[in-house]
Amino acid sequence: MTTFRVWAPKPESVALRVADSETEVQDIPMTRNASEWWEVDFAATPGVRYQYVVDGDPLPDPRSPWQPQGVHGPSATVDHSTFQWTDYGFQAPPFSSALVYELHIGAFTPEGTFDSAIQNLSCLADIGVTHIEIMPVAEFPGRWGWGYDGVDLYAPHHHYGGPDALKRLVDACHSRGLAVILDVVYNHLGPSGNYLARFGPYYTGRHHTPWGEAINFDSAGSDEVRRFFCDNALMWIRDYHMDGLRLDAVHAYIDNSATHILEQLAVEIAQLKAELGRNLVLIAESDLNDPRIIRDREVGGYGIDAQWSDDFHHALHAALTGERDGYYADFGSIAQIAKAFRRAWVYDGCYSPHRRRTHGRPAVGLSGWKFLGYLQNHDQIGNRARGERSSALISIGKLKIAAALVFTAPFVPMIFQGEEWGASTPFLYFTQHEDPELGRAVSEGRVLEFASFGWDVSEIPDPQNPATFERSKLDWDERGREPHASILDWYKKLVRLRRSFHDLLDGDFDRVHTDFNEEEKWLLVQRGGIATACNLSNVSREIPLSSGFEILLASAAIERNESCIRLPAESVAVLRFS
Amino acid sequence: MTTFRVWAPKPESVALRVADSETEVQDIPMTRNASEWWEVDFAATPGVRYQYVVDGDPLPDPRSPWQPQGVHGPSATVDHSTFQWTDYGFQAPPFSSALVYELHIGAFTPEGTFDSAIQNLSCLADIGVTHIEIMPVAEFPGRWGWGYDGVDLYAPHHHYGGPDALKRLVDACHSRGLAVILDVVYNHLGPSGNYLARFGPYYTGRHHTPWGEAINFDSAGSDEVRRFFCDNALMWIRDYHMDGLRLDAVHAYIDNSATHILEQLAVEIAQLKAELGRNLVLIAESDLNDPRIIRDREVGGYGIDAQWSDDFHHALHAALTGERDGYYADFGSIAQIAKAFRRAWVYDGCYSPHRRRTHGRPAVGLSGWKFLGYLQNHDQIGNRARGERSSALISIGKLKIAAALVFTAPFVPMIFQGEEWGASTPFLYFTQHEDPELGRAVSEGRVLEFASFGWDVSEIPDPQNPATFERSKLDWDERGREPHASILDWYKKLVRLRRSFHDLLDGDFDRVHTDFNEEEKWLLVQRGGIATACNLSNVSREIPLSSGFEILLASAAIERNESCIRLPAESVAVLRFS
Repeated sequence: MTTFRVWAPKPESVALRVADSETEVQDIPMTRNASEWWEVDFAATPGVRYQYVVDGDPLPDPRSPWQPQGVHGPSATVDHSTFQWTDYGFQAPPFSSALVYELHIGAFTPEGTFDSAIQNLSCLADIGVTHIEIMPVAEFPGRWGWGYDGVDLYAPHHHYGGPDALKRLVDACHSRGLAVILDVVYNHLGPSGNYLARFGPYYTGRHHTPWGEAINFDSAGSDEVRRFFCDNALMWIRDYHMDGLRLDAVHAYIDNSATHILEQLAVEIAQLKAELGRNLVLIAESDLNDPRIIRDREVGGYGIDAQWSDDFHHALHAALTGERDGYYADFGSIAQIAKAFRRAWVYDGCYSPHRRRTHGRPAVGLSGWKFLGYLQNHDQIGNRARGERSSALISIGKLKIAAALVFTAPFVPMIFQGEEWGASTPFLYFTQHEDPELGRAVSEGRVLEFASFGWDVSEIPDPQNPATFERSKLDWDERGREPHASILDWYKKLVRLRRSFHDLLDGDFDRVHTDFNEEEKWLLVQRGGIATACNLSNVSREIPLSSGFEILLASAAIERNESCIRLPAESVAVLRFS
Repeated sequence: MTTFRVWAPKPESVALRVADSETEVQDIPMTRNASEWWEVDFAATPGVRYQYVVDGDPLPDPRSPWQPQGVHGPSATVDHSTFQWTDYGFQAPPFSSALVYELHIGAFTPEGTFDSAIQNLSCLADIGVTHIEIMPVAEFPGRWGWGYDGVDLYAPHHHYGGPDALKRLVDACHSRGLAVILDVVYNHLGPSGNYLARFGPYYTGRHHTPWGEAINFDSAGSDEVRRFFCDNALMWIRDYHMDGLRLDAVHAYIDNSATHILEQLAVEIAQLKAELGRNLVLIAESDLNDPRIIRDREVGGYGIDAQWSDDFHHALHAALTGERDGYYADFGSIAQIAKAFRRAWVYDGCYSPHRRRTHGRPAVGLSGWKFLGYLQNHDQIGNRARGERSSALISIGKLKIAAALVFTAPFVPMIFQGEEWGASTPFLYFTQHEDPELGRAVSEGRVLEFASFGWDVSEIPDPQNPATFERSKLDWDERGREPHASILDWYKKLVRLRRSFHDLLDGDFDRVHTDFNEEEKWLLVQRGGIATACNLSNVSREIPLSSGFEILLASAAIERNESCIRLPAESVAVLRFS
């Protein structure tokens, strides 16, 4: 007997519709209990297809574990107890010494599936990756897409291979010593195949996000809405052996109640961590520059382990590329890179011209391990009109400087798939909406967005064009060719360097010292006995140094004497003081 | 020379229009500076009438200090340096030993003005009041009204007497040892005479409150919006010598930014407190049951000094009256009164049937001084269809029980004007909107609201009817007559009692012990060596006691022996253990 249950305070009637090889299609009435859950016991065959008939309309289960025919089709049961896990005793490496690798299942390999991803895991372990972070995999409309428009949050995308294939990938990661973090989207659901509103008050008109009405975290009926998301988080950890979650855009979680949903999530994950005895990590993407997100609960924080540090990215990117469009208007100076190194946030209570308001507050007392530092991620590449990676925008010299800064920063470093060899493939915004109207709207929306910034429309790849997806797939063969091979070698050296010196793994911002010259465009970052000296200008520069040193790593030929170092144009050196 | 300044990023043009006895009406163009402030110097006579001509329309100054002709009329300058204060060196009594008295200027005296209020101050000092809390006085539309629809937040209502009269009242309070707290409304502005949106982005569509679009505390342009409210708070303290502010409905301040506006307010008031060397108190009305509001900033709180405790009120009111309508559906048991005594909040993380969600979180580690406890306030009386006070709803026996509980609770006690003698006058919802359409809408809205709860329409007083206001005015003469005189005597005895025993002024919730019998409807609250024994039932009850005691105060004849006390129906006794 299987108990089918669904929370549905809204409809007048709910029935279970089942259809598999052994049973005819049949509707079984369900009973509503006092908590507005509808329930029925049914002797279902494993993997049976089912729907909930809500006031006459057959709909997928909001907590469907598998959507073998996509977002509009029937759900299918999954028995999580049958998978043959081989990862007993696996522990994720401590996050403080992690190297995170963000990847997109569809574009990571030519086949674009969970199973095919396994073949490239050894390349990641080889360069020193400790955690992979998988972009969202919850069932979304279409064969391919970024995944942020998922609608069946409990169901791994069937085009990627579905539940068992995802388990095989996680198991394979663990067998290679790699931890797995899953990107989950709890701030909205996609526009197509989202039937939640038919079941209950999942949305509230009290708050709005860029996607419309906000998820109901704080109004009538919100207890079960909160459970919907918390149970989802727990499921990925428990049933899929995930080692952590990355929470998309938590600034769009609007919750005015006494316990913020982020705190509830953190508490429940901490409890599960204690129960399972496994290292788990919760990472937020936050645009708030609010230390409360990542502070301990004892001092009024929400207890999230770490967050992405966009200010560090923006400071680095703007200074290296000279770009000043959009939010890059707030960045561009060497001083801002230096501040990010010492304080994590550049905007920590100062006025942001781009936002036209004061932004953020100081990250006082927080460790560098609470922040992920990166030169690139899926958003910063893919939200560009043409999806260019840094390697397509700046010289190899500057690329090496940027990588050296990322790997010698107090943050936990993160790279985006293919970054390690400066992949020549872009990472474009791609979709495959089957609803032609939605598809057209997405294509036109993309064009209009960039046209409004002055782009020539013909230059903007159409997200709905299959070629846009194909072009975004990594070409693993180019790794052996120049300049990719030497970029890969540089990244490997930097990872090794970071692991070799305790000073570089130290998260204490108070032990970071910076010196720079805005006009001459050089920057010196000292972390204990290790220093990173960068020359971002296109002429050679002299950087004064206070004591004797040895050169650990350099991207170009360095001249030196006792009290200074001369760096050629666009070069970097990592030094150890004696 | 006077510098006229107004923040107005929205309009294309702003001019100063002045007109007084010496000058003809003239428009003086103003200059926009880089911060979107428009400025001009003008040799104005003191108290000159002026308007800002915004894109051609003459409007009042958003920061108008005086609106001598009401919300639509011209503003007038005020020189705050000329008033002859006599309160040098005045210090408000410590809030931990306070007795707060909420009053409404219009209904406190027959004349309904700041000046006339002065004549009754000695009656308040006489019963032991330490702080008066004045309902909002910012200029609102019409001659009378509650004041929560104020629109000129810097201008004391001209029908109450305007700026100088308010200063005379505060000065008179101080001369009698009374501190003054002003109720301020920063969650919305009234519907008539509100021209803010013509000047700048004071509102945001990102959040909604029951009054429509929320005040813009966290979007583009919000720095100056926040300054508008913070500067207002500082003005009342600095220029009107207020000893504190009561912040209306802070749950409707929606602020997702890294520093919540409440924290900013608390910090700025704390700085002013240090600068002026005066005791100041910030009190929030909060419906969130969120300890963050009143926790210290060191542990992630906003640093507000205290908040109204509606749960205590609701528990008391529901148990005493038997009412279960609306939010009283969540209350009614003796156990809930007992819980409020021990934990402040009844809903501290449990499910609220009325709200249909889990509400609140425990007030762990907070002192009782952080909460105002009351049997009545303007809302709880005036939001009833017929504005009945407790004395119109329950027996004198129960009224005395309730008062005894309020004055022996760990909270800072608060009473509403006239409560001390069980005034026979109601406190109705009254308005005097001059805009006939708005007036009709308010009248009809009131009727419809209560009709939806099953009220007979003819029983609901029309807020726009002048008699509704007149009936709400206190009748001070009745104080000498029974039963008012004996109620007044009871309140005086309770205040004296509270002041006589350190145990009653102790804010430590851990030292509160309760015992009760739900069926027999008795409650015993012990605070150190003092206990309050109540019999809420209509038959006599025996309450077991663990040790010897003396009776300090009783509302009826008490029988006693060594191990118990027998209380007549609906009576209360305060005991001291030996």
